[in-house]
Amino acid sequence: MNNLTVIKIGGNVIDNPNALNRFLTDFAKLLGDTILIHGGGKIATQVAEKLGVQTTMVDGRRITDQAMLDVVTMVYGGLVNKQIVAKLQALDINAIGLTGADANIILAQKRPVKDIDYGFVGDIIEVDSGRLQSFLHQELTPVIAPLTHDGAGNMLNTNADTMASAVAVDMSRHKAVTLVYCFEKKGVLSDPTNDDSVIRELTPALYTEYKTAGTINKGMIPKLDNAFNALRNGVERVVICHADEVAMALQEGAGTTLRVAANQPES
Amino acid sequence: MNNLTVIKIGGNVIDNPNALNRFLTDFAKLLGDTILIHGGGKIATQVAEKLGVQTTMVDGRRITDQAMLDVVTMVYGGLVNKQIVAKLQALDINAIGLTGADANIILAQKRPVKDIDYGFVGDIIEVDSGRLQSFLHQELTPVIAPLTHDGAGNMLNTNADTMASAVAVDMSRHKAVTLVYCFEKKGVLSDPTNDDSVIRELTPALYTEYKTAGTINKGMIPKLDNAFNALRNGVERVVICHADEVAMALQEGAGTTLRVAANQPES
Repeated sequence: MNNLTVIKIGGNVIDNPNALNRFLTDFAKLLGDTILIHGGGKIATQVAEKLGVQTTMVDGRRITDQAMLDVVTMVYGGLVNKQIVAKLQALDINAIGLTGADANIILAQKRPVKDIDYGFVGDIIEVDSGRLQSFLHQELTPVIAPLTHDGAGNMLNTNADTMASAVAVDMSRHKAVTLVYCFEKKGVLSDPTNDDSVIRELTPALYTEYKTAGTINKGMIPKLDNAFNALRNGVERVVICHADEVAMALQEGAGTTLRVAANQPES
Repeated sequence: MNNLTVIKIGGNVIDNPNALNRFLTDFAKLLGDTILIHGGGKIATQVAEKLGVQTTMVDGRRITDQAMLDVVTMVYGGLVNKQIVAKLQALDINAIGLTGADANIILAQKRPVKDIDYGFVGDIIEVDSGRLQSFLHQELTPVIAPLTHDGAGNMLNTNADTMASAVAVDMSRHKAVTLVYCFEKKGVLSDPTNDDSVIRELTPALYTEYKTAGTINKGMIPKLDNAFNALRNGVERVVICHADEVAMALQEGAGTTLRVAANQPES
């Protein structure tokens, strides 16, 4: 079983052309199969503003009405996705830009309304990892925008962190998967005021400790929950690191590596 | 060698949700392999206006500066393409949305500046029909936005009529190809004031006659030049018809069919 690295890059990389170019240059050099999942960045908010579409965020998640769905479909599925694909092509990576609707790779359902109506937000039902595996076999590199569809004709906005976890889990049927979350810090920090206080290895016990102490803050919690969930469901390794340090992190020289006893007994 | 139908739909269909739904429902019922190529529609112009990006047209072609390139990449590659893909998925067609950059299916070069600088407009260099053929083999239906890339990291705006012709010609290496141009009329008209004056068969000689008489007007000329070019380069059949009459036209009961003596000696 050969290796696959699923990498998620966030808005901070996408919003900064130099950071994006640096990341893509490093990404193009990675060995083994790769899948790239990108977030949205601030461009969607800026485009929405100019188009007169209101942006409402609840708990860090965008409320997606029809007008906002059109904006994110444009910006994530069009502008951001195709810019990344074109740049990877220039780096001799045969990238293929996809949303969940394309080749039906990620089917979702509109999130049921409980306390909050998130609008056109998709909770993932199924990843067609067989199709993604087939694309990798054809030497294509999937570049996936944080959009899914409901199978009934509607696109849905989907959180990129969750999507990366779901793709990594499902791909672990076919390959030994490493999941990498890139963000603006060098890893999970034990001291939020010190950028160099990277926790090298994070176990569930340690995670609980940091959460209780309030050291690991609100925004990190869903990311880490996604990450531990992936580890418990077949993903071999999860790394959280700065976008500039992906290559180093994959050689275990940077970032935070998550460990659960069950699948990493040797460490 | 099995059959392939390459269909190009224009802005008039895309701008009208009911017309688009009618067309996609018919499209989903077509037999044999299909590739759909879509134009842009007025949405790009509307989005550009709201974003404060000026639209300049010369001879019916958009001048594409960087800001306009971003708009068409968003609207054609994101909004329009993904809406079509999601709707086809709902009709049980396993559509995959692509631009020329995706899987490097259509490589182009920025049009050299002669009298007019068209900006980021791509003239097609190469279609990877082997890749498209492989997607068809995998029971995927390519839905292609009128965007290409230059292999150096830039997306390029490309005329959808030209793209349809180029794809059809290159695919004729693998399959018996019918190319269909859908537009707002029932076919090429012998009397522009009478929508029912459809020319059933158009030969190059007749085309020259109508051009000389001024009956076939400016906008139709590049479309027909593309169409005849396709016929002369391996495409078996070219039909020009209304988007509502595709199924009928393919059974030769509607629209204008182009004929060149060389490849259609029996008619």
